[in-house]
Amino acid sequence: VADSDRSEIVTASVLVIGDEILSGRTKDQNIGAIADHLTTIGIALEEVRVVPDVEARIVEAVNELRARYTYVFTTGGIGPTHDDITADSIARAFGVVIDVDERALAIMRPAYAKRGLELTPARLRMARIPAGADLIANSVSLAPGFMIGNVIVMAGVPAIMRAMLEDVTGRLRTGPRMQSATIRVERPEGEIAELFAEHQKAYPEVVMGSYPSFREGRYNTELVLRATRSELLNQATDDLTTKLKASGLI
Amino acid sequence: VADSDRSEIVTASVLVIGDEILSGRTKDQNIGAIADHLTTIGIALEEVRVVPDVEARIVEAVNELRARYTYVFTTGGIGPTHDDITADSIARAFGVVIDVDERALAIMRPAYAKRGLELTPARLRMARIPAGADLIANSVSLAPGFMIGNVIVMAGVPAIMRAMLEDVTGRLRTGPRMQSATIRVERPEGEIAELFAEHQKAYPEVVMGSYPSFREGRYNTELVLRATRSELLNQATDDLTTKLKASGLI
Repeated sequence: VADSDRSEIVTASVLVIGDEILSGRTKDQNIGAIADHLTTIGIALEEVRVVPDVEARIVEAVNELRARYTYVFTTGGIGPTHDDITADSIARAFGVVIDVDERALAIMRPAYAKRGLELTPARLRMARIPAGADLIANSVSLAPGFMIGNVIVMAGVPAIMRAMLEDVTGRLRTGPRMQSATIRVERPEGEIAELFAEHQKAYPEVVMGSYPSFREGRYNTELVLRATRSELLNQATDDLTTKLKASGLI
Repeated sequence: VADSDRSEIVTASVLVIGDEILSGRTKDQNIGAIADHLTTIGIALEEVRVVPDVEARIVEAVNELRARYTYVFTTGGIGPTHDDITADSIARAFGVVIDVDERALAIMRPAYAKRGLELTPARLRMARIPAGADLIANSVSLAPGFMIGNVIVMAGVPAIMRAMLEDVTGRLRTGPRMQSATIRVERPEGEIAELFAEHQKAYPEVVMGSYPSFREGRYNTELVLRATRSELLNQATDDLTTKLKASGLI
């Protein structure tokens, strides 16, 4: 994020909580979905961490990340079972108490009754919300997420995570949206690299990356330019296209 | 990882380096693949981080992670373009010099010649290896990865990453392999949670997690038990099956 006053930029990190991701049992789908969403709304995702279901590790990561970024989005560990320790860990990180929350109960009690499900002590665990948190609606399975300070606590099940992310979005401060342009070149990146590096030097405020692929015996490289100011992005993209043509690369 | 002397356990972290993951442009496939592989060979993955293509951020993460875990596996940022700064950042993190490496050149020169590709200055960047590192073979596109101290530096392209992971595996120390057993219950997890929490208390050395799903109108919960000692795992799994049957849950 180079072409804007850093003070305008809204930053974020994602903290994935779950042994199942680290063991390989479950393949994470949330990091990419959150990354896409934040890029679209004008929040710059700058770090991701995955930690196990261990309170000390969650507390440490939350406290490091919330001090460093505008927002921290957590996924996982808010279900009804004993290994769901995210809410208690977040309360510990903020040094606040946690108990069954009347607002959460008011949502869950009629909804569970309607579905013919009993509000077991285990399910009551899902109504435990740290003091001072605001609820995040869960249109899928009803037990809410929450936002405390700059930390947004969401479920790990992808459909529920997406519903919660949708619900909380209106409450988030956003910054300039990162725009991007892609030029596809049918060459290995080693043949474009020098021209591309010179181009980066000419436009230090545009973030430029090169992504190679090799399919069906052909080398391809995607040159991606990113900036928040679209005039600057267009100028840098047009100029690169001209240079690639002049060199016979496209 | 609770049922074994911690001193036997070999731990690891993964550091994914790349703006394209954080922007959402590329969806990571390497975390899951590395997690699966490490679990299979007896290395416990305990943390993952994703950081941008920014030297200070890479250096900071590498130095934190290599002090904390037996191994650090990095992916991304070792290609020929200006945004590929991983090798230089790793050299900085270790405080060693970096230059074009004769061993890497000896691999790349004939291989590029054979494929009719010129060894451009950009491609020579891929032969830059920090002093003191051992090379990791790349059977796909030839430019090698490397291992320095306890840090294993691999490509971001999934096929190349897998080839490098395969090559380096024989050099890694491994520990007791985490075994797992899964019991599938056709109930929402809120109805199993209390029995399962009691079972966890009865077997503190077995790591137990619960993973719900909801498909085609049916609630399912997978109860996963993990331990390095298979007798203990079998005993805990059989005992849980008995308890679930006695409660009419399966």
